[in-house]
Amino acid sequence: MQGITGQDLIYACSAIGAGLAMIAGIGPGIGQGFAAGKGAEAVGRQPEAQGDIIKTMLLGAAVAETTGIYGLIIALILIFVKPFTS
Amino acid sequence: MQGITGQDLIYACSAIGAGLAMIAGIGPGIGQGFAAGKGAEAVGRQPEAQGDIIKTMLLGAAVAETTGIYGLIIALILIFVKPFTS
Amino acid sequence: MQGITGQDLIYACSAIGAGLAMIAGIGPGIGQGFAAGKGAEAVGRQPEAQGDIIKTMLLGAAVAETTGIYGLIIALILIFVKPFTS
Amino acid sequence: MQGITGQDLIYACSAIGAGLAMIAGIGPGIGQGFAAGKGAEAVGRQPEAQGDIIKTMLLGAAVAETTGIYGLIIALILIFVKPFTS
Amino acid sequence: MQGITGQDLIYACSAIGAGLAMIAGIGPGIGQGFAAGKGAEAVGRQPEAQGDIIKTMLLGAAVAETTGIYGLIIALILIFVKPFTS
Amino acid sequence: MQGITGQDLIYACSAIGAGLAMIAGIGPGIGQGFAAGKGAEAVGRQPEAQGDIIKTMLLGAAVAETTGIYGLIIALILIFVKPFTS
Amino acid sequence: MQGITGQDLIYACSAIGAGLAMIAGIGPGIGQGFAAGKGAEAVGRQPEAQGDIIKTMLLGAAVAETTGIYGLIIALILIFVKPFTS
Amino acid sequence: MQGITGQDLIYACSAIGAGLAMIAGIGPGIGQGFAAGKGAEAVGRQPEAQGDIIKTMLLGAAVAETTGIYGLIIALILIFVKPFTS
Amino acid sequence: MQGITGQDLIYACSAIGAGLAMIAGIGPGIGQGFAAGKGAEAVGRQPEAQGDIIKTMLLGAAVAETTGIYGLIIALILIFVKPFTS
Amino acid sequence: MQGITGQDLIYACSAIGAGLAMIAGIGPGIGQGFAAGKGAEAVGRQPEAQGDIIKTMLLGAAVAETTGIYGLIIALILIFVKPFTS
Amino acid sequence: MQGITGQDLIYACSAIGAGLAMIAGIGPGIGQGFAAGKGAEAVGRQPEAQGDIIKTMLLGAAVAETTGIYGLIIALILIFVKPFTS
Amino acid sequence: MQGITGQDLIYACSAIGAGLAMIAGIGPGIGQGFAAGKGAEAVGRQPEAQGDIIKTMLLGAAVAETTGIYGLIIALILIFVKPFTS
Amino acid sequence: MQGITGQDLIYACSAIGAGLAMIAGIGPGIGQGFAAGKGAEAVGRQPEAQGDIIKTMLLGAAVAETTGIYGLIIALILIFVKPFTS
Amino acid sequence: MQGITGQDLIYACSAIGAGLAMIAGIGPGIGQGFAAGKGAEAVGRQPEAQGDIIKTMLLGAAVAETTGIYGLIIALILIFVKPFTS
Repeated sequence: MQGITGQDLIYACSAIGAGLAMIAGIGPGIGQGFAAGKGAEAVGRQPEAQGDIIKTMLLGAAVAETTGIYGLIIALILIFVKPFTS
Repeated sequence: MQGITGQDLIYACSAIGAGLAMIAGIGPGIGQGFAAGKGAEAVGRQPEAQGDIIKTMLLGAAVAETTGIYGLIIALILIFVKPFTS
Repeated sequence: MQGITGQDLIYACSAIGAGLAMIAGIGPGIGQGFAAGKGAEAVGRQPEAQGDIIKTMLLGAAVAETTGIYGLIIALILIFVKPFTS
Repeated sequence: MQGITGQDLIYACSAIGAGLAMIAGIGPGIGQGFAAGKGAEAVGRQPEAQGDIIKTMLLGAAVAETTGIYGLIIALILIFVKPFTS
Repeated sequence: MQGITGQDLIYACSAIGAGLAMIAGIGPGIGQGFAAGKGAEAVGRQPEAQGDIIKTMLLGAAVAETTGIYGLIIALILIFVKPFTS
Repeated sequence: MQGITGQDLIYACSAIGAGLAMIAGIGPGIGQGFAAGKGAEAVGRQPEAQGDIIKTMLLGAAVAETTGIYGLIIALILIFVKPFTS
Repeated sequence: MQGITGQDLIYACSAIGAGLAMIAGIGPGIGQGFAAGKGAEAVGRQPEAQGDIIKTMLLGAAVAETTGIYGLIIALILIFVKPFTS
Repeated sequence: MQGITGQDLIYACSAIGAGLAMIAGIGPGIGQGFAAGKGAEAVGRQPEAQGDIIKTMLLGAAVAETTGIYGLIIALILIFVKPFTS
Repeated sequence: MQGITGQDLIYACSAIGAGLAMIAGIGPGIGQGFAAGKGAEAVGRQPEAQGDIIKTMLLGAAVAETTGIYGLIIALILIFVKPFTS
Repeated sequence: MQGITGQDLIYACSAIGAGLAMIAGIGPGIGQGFAAGKGAEAVGRQPEAQGDIIKTMLLGAAVAETTGIYGLIIALILIFVKPFTS
Repeated sequence: MQGITGQDLIYACSAIGAGLAMIAGIGPGIGQGFAAGKGAEAVGRQPEAQGDIIKTMLLGAAVAETTGIYGLIIALILIFVKPFTS
Repeated sequence: MQGITGQDLIYACSAIGAGLAMIAGIGPGIGQGFAAGKGAEAVGRQPEAQGDIIKTMLLGAAVAETTGIYGLIIALILIFVKPFTS
Repeated sequence: MQGITGQDLIYACSAIGAGLAMIAGIGPGIGQGFAAGKGAEAVGRQPEAQGDIIKTMLLGAAVAETTGIYGLIIALILIFVKPFTS
Repeated sequence: MQGITGQDLIYACSAIGAGLAMIAGIGPGIGQGFAAGKGAEAVGRQPEAQGDIIKTMLLGAAVAETTGIYGLIIALILIFVKPFTS
């Protein structure tokens, strides 16, 4: 591998790292789906409280979203900002 | 491997990284399926609230979808934008 | 491995990456099966609401399907579009 | 390994990738089995609704089947289409 | 490893790939066993509905079987069709 | 490793692959055990329906057995048929 | 490792493969233990149905045993039959 | 790899480490989603206590958020502060 | 490693394989413990049926023991029979 | 890798170690989210005890936070204190 | 590693194998703890049946102990018997 | 890697080991969070017993904290005491 | 690594093996904690049976302790007895 | 790595082994947290039995602590006793 510069190795590892960072999405996916199921169940019981239930569900899901977004941010930074240009 | 340039190594790792990023889809898949099952159960109990239940379920599932989409976005960027062209 | 070009390495890693991307199918498979089971249970309780239950179940399962499809798309792109032809 | 060409490496990795892609079958297997169990339970309670229950169960299981089929498709493509013939 | 040709490497990886593909059998095994247990429970409660319960159970289990069969097919193809004979 | 021929490498990998294929046996083992437990429970409740319960349980377990047998078949083929004799 | 023949490598990998094949024993172990617990519980409730419960439990456990035995068979074959003697 | 300096290796490992750190996001994602689901359920039962429920849910979720933020902080430090510039 | 003969490599891999085979003991350990707990619970409810419960529990646990014993047998064979003495 | 000094290797491994340490955050994330959900549920039942419930929840969550903070501390030390400067 | 004899390699691998074999202790640990908890619960309900409950619990736990002991035996043999002294 | 001394290798492995030791924090995090949730639930039911519940919860959580602290201690020792300075 | 003798390699692997053997402690930790929780619950219900409950709980936990002790023994032997001194 | 002595390799592996040994702390952490939660719940129901419940809980948790302490002991021995000084 004599033609491979250090910059190339950094870029290659950044691509792997970006992929690893996205795996964090498993968590919010399961959690928010649980919230959606519980919300639908609750609406089915008290259709008149629908607005409040959805508001609560979305508020909670929005917080759960954050760690997925963090992973996205780190992946985007690794890919576009290229912070390790030596 | 003398004929392999650094660019080739970056591309090869990008392909692996794209595959890793898609694994995040396990989460939304389980979560949204849970939501679908709970939604169907709720509709079976209160068929008259069907519209509200489906709306709540889809809203929640749409939020859960996001982390899967993030993985797709990162994979597409790694594949097409080729951000690491040195 | 002197006869191996960089293009060959990219293609080999793309095949591995495509296989990794399909693993995401575990999630929708479990989730949609849960939905199917809950749907059959609900139909067994309220056969008269069958249409609504199936509609809800399929809507939810369709959303859960998406992350599996994302994996398929990325795998197909890695295989056919060959985005990394240097 | 001087007698190994790049094409050979691609084919070898394609075989591994095809095996990886089939692992996705764990998901639909668990999910559809859950659906079958819930369906049998529901039929046991309302034998007169048997037709509707089976229809719902099979519809839901058919959707869950898809990600398993995606894995099969990718594996078959990797094996037969040999998309990476350089 | 100078005596190893590319064809040998492909065959060796095909054997590994075939083994990996069979791991998918974990899913249907758990799922169908769940179905069998639920079916036996249901028959114990309504012995008179035995025919319908078994029919439903086997239908559902047959669908769950498919992903296991996909793995078998891919393994057999990798072993016997030898699609990668260069 | 100059004394190692390609045929030897194929045989060594076949032995590993056969071992991997047997791991699929975890699934049917758990599933059929669940069925046995549920069957014993059901017989304890309706001893008079014993024949029907056992029949259902064994039918379901027989289907769950299949993926374990698939793994056995692939392992036996890898070991005895030696499909990769170059 | 110049003193290592191909036959030695096959034997070494066969020992690893035999160990891997025994891991399948996790499944029947958990499943049959579940069956034993459920059987003991059922006997505690209907001591007069003890014979039937034990018969059902052992029948089901015998089926669950099979995949463990498959692993044993493959391990024994790998060890004693030495199918890969070149 | 003669053209690779020590600084390059540090940067490459930092990218991998940043990706690993984001995996911690699986935890808050599942936990906060559970909180959101429970909150929506509680609101559905006592819509008049909605304000208190949401306040409690968000307080608890904010605490759960912290470990995800820790991972983000470490990743950002690894990427931007470049603490290991020798 | 010029002083290492093929026989040494086989022995070393046999030791690893024996360790791997013992991991199967996780299954019976969990299963039999479940049986013991359920048995103790059942005896607590019907102390007069103690003999029958213990008999059932031990019968079931004896069957679950088998796969652990299989692993022991394979490990002992790998260690003492030394089947691979070339 | 002749241009890589020992200090570089230490720094590279420190970056990996810092990433590994953050994975501990999965635990508090799940646990605190469970606490938040249970707290919201409890507030929904006894809104008048809201202050006590939140106090208890936050106290417990604060203790659960500690192990996440330990990971953060170790990561920060590995990154900034650079304890291994030889 | 020219000073390393084959005997050394066997001993080193035996130490690793002994460590692997002890991992089987996870199973009995969980199982017997479950039995202890269930036993304590049962004694709390029927203190007068304490002797019978403890007898049953210990009998069951003794059987569950076996696979842990098998692992210990194999580890001790690997360490002290040194069966692979060439 | 000719410029790497043995001391450097020890330090690098110590950094990895410190990261591994922190992973133990997953356990207390989940456990203490469970305790916090159960405590909040109990306070919601008996607000008058709040002091006793919190005392019990914190006592139990303090014990659970220990293993997390052990990991922290070992990590700090590996980092600062530098016990392996040859 | 020319200065490394075979004895050094054995010692290094023994340290790794000792660490692996301690992982078995996960099992008794979870199991005994379950026993402690169930015991505390039972004492809360029948404080007058406290002595019997604690006796049963400790007896069961003592049995569960064994596999953890086995791991400790093997680790101590690997470290102090140094059975592999060639 | 010509400057690395055998003693250095042993020390490096000891650091890794110490880190591995601490992972056992996951078990007691989860188990003791479960005990704390159950204890708090029990105190909430019978505040007058608080002393007995806490005593039982701490006794059980003390036993569960042991395996975590074993890991700590082995890690400390590996680090400070330096048993492998050749």
